[in-house]
Amino acid sequence: MAAQTPLREFRLDRRVQFYETDAAGIVHFSWYPRYMEEAEHAMWRAAGLSIHAPEDAYGWPRVALTVDYLVPLHFEDEFTITIWVAELGARSMRYGCDLSRGDTRVATGSMTTACVTRDAEGAVRSTPLPGIVRERFAVSEARR
Amino acid sequence: MAAQTPLREFRLDRRVQFYETDAAGIVHFSWYPRYMEEAEHAMWRAAGLSIHAPEDAYGWPRVALTVDYLVPLHFEDEFTITIWVAELGARSMRYGCDLSRGDTRVATGSMTTACVTRDAEGAVRSTPLPGIVRERFAVSEARR
Amino acid sequence: MAAQTPLREFRLDRRVQFYETDAAGIVHFSWYPRYMEEAEHAMWRAAGLSIHAPEDAYGWPRVALTVDYLVPLHFEDEFTITIWVAELGARSMRYGCDLSRGDTRVATGSMTTACVTRDAEGAVRSTPLPGIVRERFAVSEARR
Amino acid sequence: MAAQTPLREFRLDRRVQFYETDAAGIVHFSWYPRYMEEAEHAMWRAAGLSIHAPEDAYGWPRVALTVDYLVPLHFEDEFTITIWVAELGARSMRYGCDLSRGDTRVATGSMTTACVTRDAEGAVRSTPLPGIVRERFAVSEARR
Repeated sequence: MAAQTPLREFRLDRRVQFYETDAAGIVHFSWYPRYMEEAEHAMWRAAGLSIHAPEDAYGWPRVALTVDYLVPLHFEDEFTITIWVAELGARSMRYGCDLSRGDTRVATGSMTTACVTRDAEGAVRSTPLPGIVRERFAVSEARR
Repeated sequence: MAAQTPLREFRLDRRVQFYETDAAGIVHFSWYPRYMEEAEHAMWRAAGLSIHAPEDAYGWPRVALTVDYLVPLHFEDEFTITIWVAELGARSMRYGCDLSRGDTRVATGSMTTACVTRDAEGAVRSTPLPGIVRERFAVSEARR
Repeated sequence: MAAQTPLREFRLDRRVQFYETDAAGIVHFSWYPRYMEEAEHAMWRAAGLSIHAPEDAYGWPRVALTVDYLVPLHFEDEFTITIWVAELGARSMRYGCDLSRGDTRVATGSMTTACVTRDAEGAVRSTPLPGIVRERFAVSEARR
Repeated sequence: MAAQTPLREFRLDRRVQFYETDAAGIVHFSWYPRYMEEAEHAMWRAAGLSIHAPEDAYGWPRVALTVDYLVPLHFEDEFTITIWVAELGARSMRYGCDLSRGDTRVATGSMTTACVTRDAEGAVRSTPLPGIVRERFAVSEARR
């Protein structure tokens, strides 16, 4: 069976929900990391993986987050989250993200996630990315 | 050592955070169950217990929720959540709740929580309330 | 032009996001009212309306909420929210809701929403449902 | 009356709520910007100001956010958010933030907020910081 082509980027369409807005009438800034995470997990599913499978020994805690907010989003706006693999490190992954509404760029950001596992005593330890993750994802050279 | 008097009710003071408001300029209705839960967990701490201790075999999933919304809350409003034990069932607890801002009653509600544990196969099963919970809490006859 | 058939119910497919889960490994109970609201707003869009249009004089604050939780939802579960009009009152609407995952009923609930407007002094007042809402929605006799 | 000494930094004590945790058993990363905002708004109140007063012509949308996550937070953890003014720009403010649990540094971050107002047509425009904000806050030279 032919190997699957590794995924470099993914696009997710989304609509702003009412509970994501705040009293300033725009989406609260804390929702952008959640939008980015939704796109990340959808990309993992598209790669045939789950970031949090019950039987899975790995965890993926966040190490770093950046968001630059360009124009606000409002209730019922339709927008697109584009996420791409910016770096596949020895023990971490970095994603780049873009949010856009039509032709308007709304925000841009990045997330870095460490790969961890638990040792025999239950302590969380950084660990090399599993082989399946290296197989299914590749850095987006165009975007990086 | 004298036994602790069982807790019947508990009051928690709280202030509305900006991220709890929505584009209508008021607290989004989904925050009221969270306010009620905050008061519940604070009552458990006041009783010397944690509702989710790492070593604990019990879980407390929700079974039922009701909220009646009387007047809206706004950003930076200070309010009080009063929670009381309305029923100590064989395998569940029911709480009553009142939210007030000064003399104004803001909302009233109830939450029912089941006591569960996992059997040897990992399946979740309803189970009798642990003795320590029956010791530390008692029904608020005045409120019920 | 023929009048649109009034909407009585609506179904929305959804997937559980990671940030909706809690440390018990299931969807936090405060997310169910949000799921119900997502279906409500999608039903309004299907009826050609927005529940919070910028130029709109009406507001729709919640008056009552009930949820009965039957089985838990987990990360990445796919589920369906069915919402229907249970009552079209003079100045309020009541919806019924069902959540299901495949053939399993996950939760059931209801939401009551008041129709309000602001008077000349800016005070919020209950007001009769606008005609367009009475045109576009009808009570689901089957479900009620 | 003597002028108030301008505020340079502020500390807020906080406890992790259950609904802030996720299925990995730790606080979801999207909560850190909310913690940072809670400290920011508490600092404004300590300075005698509100960031979102009903009669206020100014808005404060986010321009940039960074968070570095060092160790996870768990349910019921007590922690402290320290926020300081890192920059008072012509039309924006930058804050630095530190989260710590006892002696352990948990996270560090920054938020940049623009000052905006609406012109006669209702369009949002960047505007110089109001004088009262320049009076009540000053850059923390020690922290910057």
